[in-house]
Amino acid sequence: MRYPPAFDRCVSCFSRFQGIGRKTAERLVFDILTRWDEAAVQEFAHALLHLTKGIVICPDCRVHVESLPCPFCAEERKKAGALCVVATSKDVYAIDATGHFPGTFFVLGTLLSPLDNRGVERMELERLKQRIVKEEIKEAIFALDSSLEGDATVCFMKEELKALPLKLTRLAAGVPVGATLEFVDRGTLSRAFCGRQTL
Amino acid sequence: MRYPPAFDRCVSCFSRFQGIGRKTAERLVFDILTRWDEAAVQEFAHALLHLTKGIVICPDCRVHVESLPCPFCAEERKKAGALCVVATSKDVYAIDATGHFPGTFFVLGTLLSPLDNRGVERMELERLKQRIVKEEIKEAIFALDSSLEGDATVCFMKEELKALPLKLTRLAAGVPVGATLEFVDRGTLSRAFCGRQTL
Repeated sequence: MRYPPAFDRCVSCFSRFQGIGRKTAERLVFDILTRWDEAAVQEFAHALLHLTKGIVICPDCRVHVESLPCPFCAEERKKAGALCVVATSKDVYAIDATGHFPGTFFVLGTLLSPLDNRGVERMELERLKQRIVKEEIKEAIFALDSSLEGDATVCFMKEELKALPLKLTRLAAGVPVGATLEFVDRGTLSRAFCGRQTL
Repeated sequence: MRYPPAFDRCVSCFSRFQGIGRKTAERLVFDILTRWDEAAVQEFAHALLHLTKGIVICPDCRVHVESLPCPFCAEERKKAGALCVVATSKDVYAIDATGHFPGTFFVLGTLLSPLDNRGVERMELERLKQRIVKEEIKEAIFALDSSLEGDATVCFMKEELKALPLKLTRLAAGVPVGATLEFVDRGTLSRAFCGRQTL
C-alpha cells in the first residue's frame, strides 16, 4: 500500500531541505497530521507564501533584511571603519547579537569549495573591493567556519585583497567557552596554543 | 538587530514540529531563502494546504488513508483473522511494506505514558474490542516500540483483552539485522537469548 498522494507530495517538499531525508520528512508530515490543528497548518502555509515577500537582500551587504534601507548599512555603522566578511546572512544576525561588532557586513553567500565546484563567481568580490575603498575600511574581519573550506576561503581572500591598504583579521580559534580541555580535539588545542593571550 | 518578522513567523511555524528547536528552524528557513526558488516555495505551501484535504482517518482502523473505503480494511484482509495493533499510522505503512502481514490493523494513536499523563482515553479500546469480536480475530499482534512505554502498553492491553478468546503476541525483540554483536546492548542481547529460535 502506498502513502496517499497528498502525503507524498508533502514529503517530497520536506525532502528538499538540506539534512532532511525521506524518513525525517515522513516523520514531519505525520507530526502535522497527528498533532497540528487546521489553523496551524494554514498559518504555516501562509508564513511560507509571505516569507520571500517580507524579505529583501540588501544590494550592498547582501544580508536578508526586512526592508531597505538596510539597518546593517546605516551610516553610524560605516563610521566604525570595520567590515565583517561572513558566509551567510544567518552569521550576520549571530554576530550582531553578541554586541561586539559595531561595523558593517559583507555576505559571501558561499565558502570556497573547489571539490563541489563552488567557486568565486557567487562571492561578488568586485563589490566587496569597491565597498572597502568607498567606505575607507581599515579592518576586514573574516568570520568564517573553522573548516578546510573556511581556511581555503581566508587564504584566497587574503591574496585577493593584499593590494588594498587595510588590516585583515580572522576570528580566534581556540577552546570553546564552557568546554572541558580533556575533550578538545588536537587541532583546536594546537591553534589555541598558537593564539594564546597575555594576561 | 532582530530577524525580519516574515522570517520569524516562519521560524515559529517550523518550531512547532517535535524535535525541531529554534536553531534548526532558523536553519530550515535560511535554506528556503538561499536555495529554493519561488515555485518550490509555492508548491510547498500548496502541498501543506491540501495535505489534510487529501487524507482521511479510517473510522475502523484509524489509519490515515487517501479515501474510504480504507484499503487496509478490505474484506480479503479481514479473512486472515489477524489484527496488528500499532501506535501510529506510520507503523502501518512500514509493516505493510514488509509484505509479511496479510491482516488488518488498529492504530492506538499513542502509547501508555502515565508520567506524561497520556492515558487510555485516546486509544478507543472499546472499538478495538468490538472489532476483535465482530471480525472473529484469532491473533492480535502488538507491534509497538521496544521501550518502557511500549512494554507498559503491552501489559495493559494484555489485561484488557484477557477475557477475549484470542492469541496475543508481540514482535520479537533481538539483534537488529546487520548488527555486530559487539555493539548490541545488554537488554537486547538478553531478550534475543530468551527468544532464541530452533534451527
